Amino acid sequence: MRILIISYDNYDDSEMFYPYYRLLEEDFDVTVASTKSGEISGKHWMKIGVDMDINDVDVNDFDALLLPGGTAPEKLRQEQKPVEVVSMFAKAGKPIASICHGQQLLISAKALVDKKATCYPGIKDDIINAGAIYVDEPVVVCENLVTSRRPQDLPYFMRGFISVLKKQL
Amino acid sequence: MRILIISYDNYDDSEMFYPYYRLLEEDFDVTVASTKSGEISGKHWMKIGVDMDINDVDVNDFDALLLPGGTAPEKLRQEQKPVEVVSMFAKAGKPIASICHGQQLLISAKALVDKKATCYPGIKDDIINAGAIYVDEPVVVCENLVTSRRPQDLPYFMRGFISVLKKQL
Repeated sequence: MRILIISYDNYDDSEMFYPYYRLLEEDFDVTVASTKSGEISGKHWMKIGVDMDINDVDVNDFDALLLPGGTAPEKLRQEQKPVEVVSMFAKAGKPIASICHGQQLLISAKALVDKKATCYPGIKDDIINAGAIYVDEPVVVCENLVTSRRPQDLPYFMRGFISVLKKQL
Repeated sequence: MRILIISYDNYDDSEMFYPYYRLLEEDFDVTVASTKSGEISGKHWMKIGVDMDINDVDVNDFDALLLPGGTAPEKLRQEQKPVEVVSMFAKAGKPIASICHGQQLLISAKALVDKKATCYPGIKDDIINAGAIYVDEPVVVCENLVTSRRPQDLPYFMRGFISVLKKQL
């Protein structure tokens, strides 16, 4: 499977690297796209290479989307193309996994309407206002949408996401 | 299964958190032991809570051992108890996973004699001098000993370790 990760500087380091290595462990192809080229740095200055410019992303080339948290999503939601890409994954019904503040991109892409979801407590009101049915659990799986709250939820988050991905195989 | 992680300040953050969350994803019990109490910080200042003083560790309480890298192992190998604990896991034939500089503890515990193993390139000569049969692969599984070279090997490392652990069930 081909998984797209969308992020920018100041992602949450665990929320980037745990899913990244975990998907590789499953032998999936993982592509990191950003509006920035070269490398992007986490809040703890861990760096990951950017594989492609998000402006070059064709959603048809990917089977699923993953959105790490940190302050990266709030940066990316201010630009048209990242929001458009997220929206196209949602409209296509492809699996989307989003953790912590990743859900800010889901809000902007209008991908949470009538969906059960969770998020970082600080943006709970925002996902509710965006039409989500808020649930306070380590992982919430609603059809092909997988959401979690924070780094400590990562084991549940990836168990949920991989289970959704394997149903596509 | 009950897995013990032994570390100290300045562990490699990915080599701590990827295995930590990954083992939790498998529903294993994970205990972090150190010579320091409270929290220990990675090279990138990510913090993890210390569950127990290494001086209180009884090897009989655990099924397997995991050693992250960073400069933590070089610090810990200077003390008697961490080396003794590693040595007891090895003598008992319990699964041990060690990555990068974690192998410095295996050297001091004389746990590498006649074992196929890999490590961070900078300590290759040391594991050879300690009796290991050096192999340059992302993961080397030799009976119950699982070794890797660096953070980028983590997907292979944990695939190897979990496969060894599941054989014990």
